[in-house]
Amino acid sequence: MFYIIGLGLCDEKDITLRGLEAVKSSSRVYLEAYTSILMIQQDRLEAFYGKPVIIADRDMVETQSDEILKDADKEDVSLLVVGDPFGATTHTDIILRARALGIPTRVIHNASIMNAVGACGLQLYNFGQTVSLVFFTETWKPDSYYDRVKENVQLGMHTLVLLDIKVKEQSEENLARGRKIYEPPRYMSIPTAISQMIETESTRQEKILEPENTLAIGLSRVGGDGLQQKIVAGTLKELLDQPAEQFGEPLHSVVIVGKRLHHLEVEYAEEYAVDRQNWRRVAREVYGCADL
Amino acid sequence: MFYIIGLGLCDEKDITLRGLEAVKSSSRVYLEAYTSILMIQQDRLEAFYGKPVIIADRDMVETQSDEILKDADKEDVSLLVVGDPFGATTHTDIILRARALGIPTRVIHNASIMNAVGACGLQLYNFGQTVSLVFFTETWKPDSYYDRVKENVQLGMHTLVLLDIKVKEQSEENLARGRKIYEPPRYMSIPTAISQMIETESTRQEKILEPENTLAIGLSRVGGDGLQQKIVAGTLKELLDQPAEQFGEPLHSVVIVGKRLHHLEVEYAEEYAVDRQNWRRVAREVYGCADL
Repeated sequence: MFYIIGLGLCDEKDITLRGLEAVKSSSRVYLEAYTSILMIQQDRLEAFYGKPVIIADRDMVETQSDEILKDADKEDVSLLVVGDPFGATTHTDIILRARALGIPTRVIHNASIMNAVGACGLQLYNFGQTVSLVFFTETWKPDSYYDRVKENVQLGMHTLVLLDIKVKEQSEENLARGRKIYEPPRYMSIPTAISQMIETESTRQEKILEPENTLAIGLSRVGGDGLQQKIVAGTLKELLDQPAEQFGEPLHSVVIVGKRLHHLEVEYAEEYAVDRQNWRRVAREVYGCADL
Repeated sequence: MFYIIGLGLCDEKDITLRGLEAVKSSSRVYLEAYTSILMIQQDRLEAFYGKPVIIADRDMVETQSDEILKDADKEDVSLLVVGDPFGATTHTDIILRARALGIPTRVIHNASIMNAVGACGLQLYNFGQTVSLVFFTETWKPDSYYDRVKENVQLGMHTLVLLDIKVKEQSEENLARGRKIYEPPRYMSIPTAISQMIETESTRQEKILEPENTLAIGLSRVGGDGLQQKIVAGTLKELLDQPAEQFGEPLHSVVIVGKRLHHLEVEYAEEYAVDRQNWRRVAREVYGCADL
């Protein structure tokens, strides 16, 4: 059996009992380590499972999946994925490949940011499509995400913005010279994300992401024990003005609040507001949220 | 500490290790049993945890939450929720109440249908807002859900349709006479949902849910072991024509496929199609999905 197992969001204890059973029965265990990160390292997982964990990079999962799937028709093999297995397209690919090889497959679900984002107090059914924000460079500032946010904003829906992760990237020079030297991993922070969004707004000027009139919520390490999880709510401008350490360790995500906003959502998230009064004021005056 | 613990989707083994630790440390354990159902019964959970599990109905969670929260500042109390704790509004209420009482709260996330729906092969980031479909009666056929689906359809996004659950409902007569006699639980099935959607389409006639030109996917017991999970894909008409047993046991959900459709999504879901040729044909000809 080929198992794809969601690890949840934080550490080794977020696996489900069903997932742990599958790991224990597997002769090989891979960890997909490029679309997200756990808050812990490989060695802690290995100690916890009592067996080696093979790191599977993008290259391995996308182009050498037959190696991962080898003998999975005769023995159990597990691929561990941070969050839920259906967060990233590549896992659909490997399941399709397993099917083509006649290998039975089982998915073991877990929390992912796609549902755990509810921790900020906004109702999940009021979220529209999810968007991804990539690192801008001097010459490349893709803004198609802005159109997606606009679609959601126009319907009054919230938007979950997933922030870029660069793992095992090569510099242009190393890439050009074919040198397999990789840059240190980079995770987009909430302040970077917000400054990019404000930059796009200043170019597009369609009043979708106005710094002082747009409410947003930054989340980091959702589900993390005690002090690890950070949720910070405010206008884009307020969030931009916060010191970086306010937002905690990566991974970070941002939610753009939509206008179909219920007063309970405002009250719940107020707990996390940089400035509670301004949070309520913008919700009432700009968002038109009644009952506040 | 007051814990709200997601149980995941299927049975006692879908709890996370972190969740199980919290249950073990709790002096009282409640199970919220009206917004969703597990595939197993209370006694099996009690045997597994080695302690009693108190069933908390809507009345208890919504109006007697202080009873649940009693002494949670001095000892551990757990409220178990099927799926993830942030699926239903009521859990926000009880957390707000705990905050007001100065009781520390911890949420332990898990998979919910909101992210596990990815099992059907459609990409989660292409889903728009989620809608709920309630049981129609002779005189009450609310169709505001149709407007929400329309918003998603017009943007090309997929729609997750959550189907009504009636638990601990009273008949009109018993309600009028104040008799606390409850009807047996009812769970809306995929065929009922689809026939209601087709009924709304025939009234509204806005070509949002045309029986032969709308692709949909029915899901039941997502994440369930082996034969329990059922996924069936086809046009609304094809799904309506399937025998009821094809769809498995409750809970059921339906996805309305949006036009921003990638060929990998079509290929993945084809595995579940009632008629693979027609599935591809509609995806290509009606949805305009290239590369098929």
